[in-house]
This record gives sequence, structure tokens and C-alpha cells, in this order.
Amino acid sequence: MSKVEPRILKGFRDYLPSKMIPRQKMIAAIEQTFQRFGFLPLMTPALEYLEVLTGKYGQEGDQLLYRFQDHGGRDVGLRYDLTVPLARVVAQYPQEVLLPFRRYQIAPVWRAENPARGRFREFVQCDADVVGSADMAADAELVQLGCELLEGLGVQSFRVRINNRKVLSGILFSIGQPSREEEVGILRTIDKLPKVGKDEALRLLETENGLSPDRAARLLELVASNGPPREILRGLDAAFKDDPVGKKGVAELLEVVEILEGAGIADRVELDLSIARGLAYYTGTIYETFLLDLPGYGSVMSGGRYDELVGVFRGQPVPAVGISLGIDRLLEGLVELGVLKTQGAVAPVLVTLFAKETAAYSARVARLLRAAGIGCELYPAAAKIGKQLARASENGQRWVVVAGPDEAARGEVAVKDLETRTQETMRLDALAAHLGARMAGS
Amino acid sequence: MSKVEPRILKGFRDYLPSKMIPRQKMIAAIEQTFQRFGFLPLMTPALEYLEVLTGKYGQEGDQLLYRFQDHGGRDVGLRYDLTVPLARVVAQYPQEVLLPFRRYQIAPVWRAENPARGRFREFVQCDADVVGSADMAADAELVQLGCELLEGLGVQSFRVRINNRKVLSGILFSIGQPSREEEVGILRTIDKLPKVGKDEALRLLETENGLSPDRAARLLELVASNGPPREILRGLDAAFKDDPVGKKGVAELLEVVEILEGAGIADRVELDLSIARGLAYYTGTIYETFLLDLPGYGSVMSGGRYDELVGVFRGQPVPAVGISLGIDRLLEGLVELGVLKTQGAVAPVLVTLFAKETAAYSARVARLLRAAGIGCELYPAAAKIGKQLARASENGQRWVVVAGPDEAARGEVAVKDLETRTQETMRLDALAAHLGARMAGS
Repeated sequence: MSKVEPRILKGFRDYLPSKMIPRQKMIAAIEQTFQRFGFLPLMTPALEYLEVLTGKYGQEGDQLLYRFQDHGGRDVGLRYDLTVPLARVVAQYPQEVLLPFRRYQIAPVWRAENPARGRFREFVQCDADVVGSADMAADAELVQLGCELLEGLGVQSFRVRINNRKVLSGILFSIGQPSREEEVGILRTIDKLPKVGKDEALRLLETENGLSPDRAARLLELVASNGPPREILRGLDAAFKDDPVGKKGVAELLEVVEILEGAGIADRVELDLSIARGLAYYTGTIYETFLLDLPGYGSVMSGGRYDELVGVFRGQPVPAVGISLGIDRLLEGLVELGVLKTQGAVAPVLVTLFAKETAAYSARVARLLRAAGIGCELYPAAAKIGKQLARASENGQRWVVVAGPDEAARGEVAVKDLETRTQETMRLDALAAHLGARMAGS
Repeated sequence: MSKVEPRILKGFRDYLPSKMIPRQKMIAAIEQTFQRFGFLPLMTPALEYLEVLTGKYGQEGDQLLYRFQDHGGRDVGLRYDLTVPLARVVAQYPQEVLLPFRRYQIAPVWRAENPARGRFREFVQCDADVVGSADMAADAELVQLGCELLEGLGVQSFRVRINNRKVLSGILFSIGQPSREEEVGILRTIDKLPKVGKDEALRLLETENGLSPDRAARLLELVASNGPPREILRGLDAAFKDDPVGKKGVAELLEVVEILEGAGIADRVELDLSIARGLAYYTGTIYETFLLDLPGYGSVMSGGRYDELVGVFRGQPVPAVGISLGIDRLLEGLVELGVLKTQGAVAPVLVTLFAKETAAYSARVARLLRAAGIGCELYPAAAKIGKQLARASENGQRWVVVAGPDEAARGEVAVKDLETRTQETMRLDALAAHLGARMAGS
């Protein structure tokens, strides 16, 4: 085999242990919250029939799909999100997947984006959805789940900004009904509002979306409404006159707000009529979540109601609502905030390996500690003790168990505490109890 | 959007909750063992430059690679195993990945195989490797890790069958030196021996690998050696005369056996000279693991030493040894053995939802239980109580908390125990303590 340059595709990432360790703690905490809420795990393939994926994400999404022909000449694509595969599953297994169905899935998705800061071609999505319920109780439950996901990760300072696509439709209708296609374009511009600012948004609405300056200004004024939720909603309801779609959106939003108040988490949530969400398939409630201590960082958790997507596979409408957590984006944010720390080791104890002759003794020492539930790393090569101690120290391992030829001959071990820089020698059968007590006390 | 048939590619699988719940328990137990051994987590991308992947798995492997051109016209391929990406990572980040390096990775891989019973195009691999140590202590540590992985999953009855590629080379040399290419073909036939039986193996060795009947018979006789490990190894050492490769293999195997004896797990392991492993890159120790209660089921955990692979990326030889657990194959086996059970719910409690008017009260009840650490599912749609009770019963949820309009008005809940078919009404603030006590007692 001739030498190959070790390199990775642009927009893709290797997660080395120092980052994977906190990332896995994060995922474990997330799974715990999902389980506390009784959401069920689901796994779908990375590859799908291309026709399962196309036409669901809008034209831009279709272009970003990784697609190819497989060995059998079938057109296939890499998973672009977790929502479309969920919709397929619900339609494909009507006997096994009973509605309403609550599931979560944590898995990578692939999009051929132009890589940029915080934008990758492979990233892990973490989704929870309720399929088969049109009740706002489900929308509110997902917002509550989202709040507890973040709280479970030690994040206390965040806000869920909530809106409703029907309300946005009502607003658009009230400034003069645009076509469905125009509507998608306008929503995409509104979605960019926090990033690009009001002036640029105005310009885009006029040049890209063809709105007159008056209509563009009126639109921005409406989506920037401020104040207590009930007041805003009352104002909108009046503005919508007899538009049934807009009025239904107002009623839905009000219901979600009332349930969240009843559950006691209304202070986590605020109404924000400029939240639009890029994806084409949302039909009702939509939300995004921001870390208050990282202004300008962008949404770490978002989602909404999509009552038409599942029907594409099922042939009859099935209401659904979901939430999606951007694990890697959140990880970066939490490391930046100091909530999570990078880490060099998972086991607190290192067992040394001196030479071939004592390899069996070292293996016995390690086995004994593990049997006592103490995580320990056996240094996997005979090396100078200095090198082994230096590695333990770099990795933040406090305890090193020295098992050299002298110790092996006497059935003993020497335990070094790198923090207090002390050492104690003891019989092997006293080791686990000794370390267990020291670790409990530290 | 027009209707799309919900279907999945052949050789790919959806894991519905009933199977995902035990599967995740399995993965959690596996991660716990990895951590007890101090192996570090690593994650690499699903897509790699094609040249990173090709030429490492033999000609057959290259043909099974999923490959295509990405949007930038780059030749890319889907991950075929976790070992080649590990080798790339070790070579790519010499400052961050210090040797010896111990890592684990649990991730899907893709191979365009002909789907068959137990053979899929997407499956999860679970690998642990030590890179940068040529010491047999590392080989023995991985065997020990493998044993504890299985024990941690509740499997008690299994055997690790161990061999060494250098010993196989010695055996081939002793029957008349074949070329490197012939060697690969012969090893592939030997690898099939347990599946096809001795007569068919003889036939294949003669017809496919071009061995004379005498040499084929002598070969099978050697690889079928039986008896205590030290005795077999002594016999081989004599048969290898002055072949240095074969003799080195014997010395390595003996060392691994001695360390495993010292660690006290020799009874888990047996020498089996017919273990060959299909992949081209192994150079020393090789092993496969079989469930004794499922004869003929095939290996659930295997691996070995590959001292040349990392050098392909690094430009200088880096010894390495690894073990790989077939999660899905093992899951099927454990379900078949009754060690793992499929399951319908993760939360033991269902909170009912009666109507729009009581949605806020139900949400409050659920939040209160979760805050007390009690997993509970809020039924996500207003439905008849009978339907909600039936779902709880089907899913094996024992407790249903009824929060209807009467209860809400009085600040109470009714708790149904589906097992004893009893019901108690209580104030909401007494609920968590009541359920906590009942669950602790059950």
C-alpha cells in the first residue's frame, strides 16, 4: 500500500476525545430527559430512496442533497434531516407505529452547504416529534421538553421565541395576498431579519421579493410587534379582520401560551412574530431558542408544526409537531460559556506497565479495579515510568498504580496520588478499597 | 407535494422503538465498560475522500464501497469500517493524538453487500483499538475488554477463539510457500471452514486456491490442531523449524495466553488455528467470539493486530490492535437467548389528556412528576380515557394518572394501577411522593 495523505473533506469534522468526552456527556443528559418525558427512540437509515427526500425541503434543500446511484442503479440520497424519514416510517408501518406517536432520534444528517463558521456538511440532529395529534397540548409539551433539555445540560439563561406560520400568513394576507411562491420567499427574508437587520431586510423585501416600500415597511412593523403576548395577539386578531387562517393562528398561539403558563414555564418563552423558520413544510407553531449569554450566536433549538408532510407518504393528512436541537452548535456554545469543559481522560486511574514480564500482573491489577467499579486505564505498552506518569498528569488522571517487578514479586502495588504528590505501598488485595475510599473523599 | 410510496432500500433497516429501547440499553452498557477500561471516544465523518478508503480492504472490499462524486466533483466514499478512519486520524493529528492511543467508536458503516439473513448494507460497528503499542499486553487487554463487554451485557456463555496471522503464515510456509496473493486466497478459504465444513474446504483449496490434495490435507490437519494451548504451540514451533515468521507468531500467541492466564480469564479463551479473518490488513493476533448457547450463529466480536495499516497514512510503521463488536448481530442473538427483551415504553407513567380545557393542568401534572425524577408520558392528544388506558396497557405502563376536569377543579388526580386494577384519588401535591413510594416497592 503506497502512502496516502491523511485528510478530511471540507465541511466534515473529526471529533477527537477532548471534545467527544463532553459531547457524550451532553448526549447522555439529553437521552435522560427524553426518557423522563417518555419519548421513544427510533433509528432510520442514512441512505434513502431519493424520491423519499426530494420535494420536501424546497428547491434550495433539493440542491443540497447528497445524491448518487447505488450499485443497483437506484437513485439514492443521504438523510437531510430526521423529519422526512420519520414521516416515511409513520406511513410505512401503520400496524406497529400507533398514533399519536412520540419519538426522538439523535443522528447525523448531510447537506452540501458552503461550509462557513458554524455551518457544516455533516452535523448531528437531535429531534423529538409528536405525530398524530393536532392538539396544542403537543406543541406546548415540546416547548416544555426543549426547556428541560437545556436545563438538563446546565443551561439556565435562554429564551424560546415562539410564533405561528398561520399568523405569518395572516400578516402577509393583511398587506395584500402574495402567491404561495412569493410567500416562501418573503418568509425566507423575514427569517434572515435578526442576522441582517431591519434596513437590509427592507431592501431584500423590495428587491428580492418585489414588495412595494409601503407593504415592506408595514410587514416589518407587524412582525416586530412588542409587548405582553395576549396584547399582541389581541391586536393581530383585530388586524386580521375576517381572515380565518390568521385568526386560527392567533387562537393556536394563545392556547400554547396558556398551557405553558399553566405548566409554570411561561417565563422561558416569548412571542416573536419575526421567527419564520426556513423550511417549507411548517404549517402552525414555530419556535427558535437563543442563549441569552451568547447574543448573536443563533438558535440552538428550533422546530414547529408540520401538518402536511406525513400525508405525502400516508395519503391522508396526519398532524405533527417537532423540536430539533443542534447538538454541535450547542456544544460549542456551552464550551464557550464554560458550562462544559474539554477533557483528556475518562478513567481516573492509570495502571502502569513496566515490562513483558510483569504484563500479566498489571492486567490482573487492572481487572481487579474494574471489578470493583473503578475506571482504570492500563498503559498499553511497556514504557519508562516517567512517560507514563507524564501522560496521566496531562490527561488529568489523579491516581497512578505502579505495578513493577518488585511490587509483582511481593504481590503489592504502589499508589501515587499526583495531586498530593504522595505515594503509598499496599498489598494488591487492599488496593480497590483504598482507592475507592480516596476517590469517594476527593 | 404528490404522494410518495413509503419504502426503504434493501439491506437497510428502520429500528422501531420496540427494538431501539433494548438496543440503546445495550449501547449504554457497552459505553460503561469502555469507560471502565479508560478507552476514549472518537467520532469521524461518514464521508471520506475515496483514496483514504480504497486499497485497504482487498479487492472485494473496494467493490463494496459506496462511492460517488460530491458537488465539488471530488471522489468520495461512505465509511466501510472504523479502522481505516482511525488510522487516518492518528496520522493526521500527531500533536493531539499521543501514542499509545486507546479509543473506541460506535458508528454505522456501509457496504454494498448482497443482503442476506444477518447481512446488511448499513450496520453499526463498535470498535476499540490501541494504536502505537507492539506489546502483547495490548492484545491481551483487548481480549479482556471483549470479555467484559459481553459480561456487562449479561452474556455468560461465550468463547473467544484466538489465532495469529504469523502462525498461519508459518503453516502455509511449512506446506510450501505460496505467493502473497495465493496466501490471501487460501486464508479466505480457511476463514470459511466453520461454515462450509472440512470436505468443502478441501475442495475449495484444490479448485479455487490450486493446492495439491496432499498440501490441502496437510493444511487442514494443521489448522484443526486440538489440545491444551501450550502443547499445540510447542508442536507448531517444532513444525516451523527455522521459519522466523511462524516462530514469532507462536511466541506472540504464547505471550497473550500467559497474560490472560495472569489476569484470570484464560477460561474464556481458546486457541483455534482455523480462525483466519477475512480482511487483508491483519498481521498478528486475530480473534473471533462465539455464543456457546447459539451454535452456528457466527462471530459476534472479532479483531486483531494490524501493524501496517496506520503506516499507509503516517509514512512510518505504527503498530495497532483492535476489537470490533457487531452490535446488531449481538442484539438479535441476545433477544433470541432471552437476555434482552423488546419493549414498548420507556416511561412507567402515563398522564392522561382529557380536553383542551384541562391541557394546562395535565402539563402541570407531568412537569411535577418529571421534576421528581419520575419518567412520565403526557398523552399528546385529547382522547377518550379508554383509548389512553389501552395504550398504557399495551406499552406495559403500570401507572396512569387521570387528570380530568373534575380532578383539575379540585386540584386532585386519580392514580390507576393497571396491575392491581385499583385507583386512588389524591391532592396533586401528594402525587409524586405516592408514585415514588409505589414504584420503589414494585
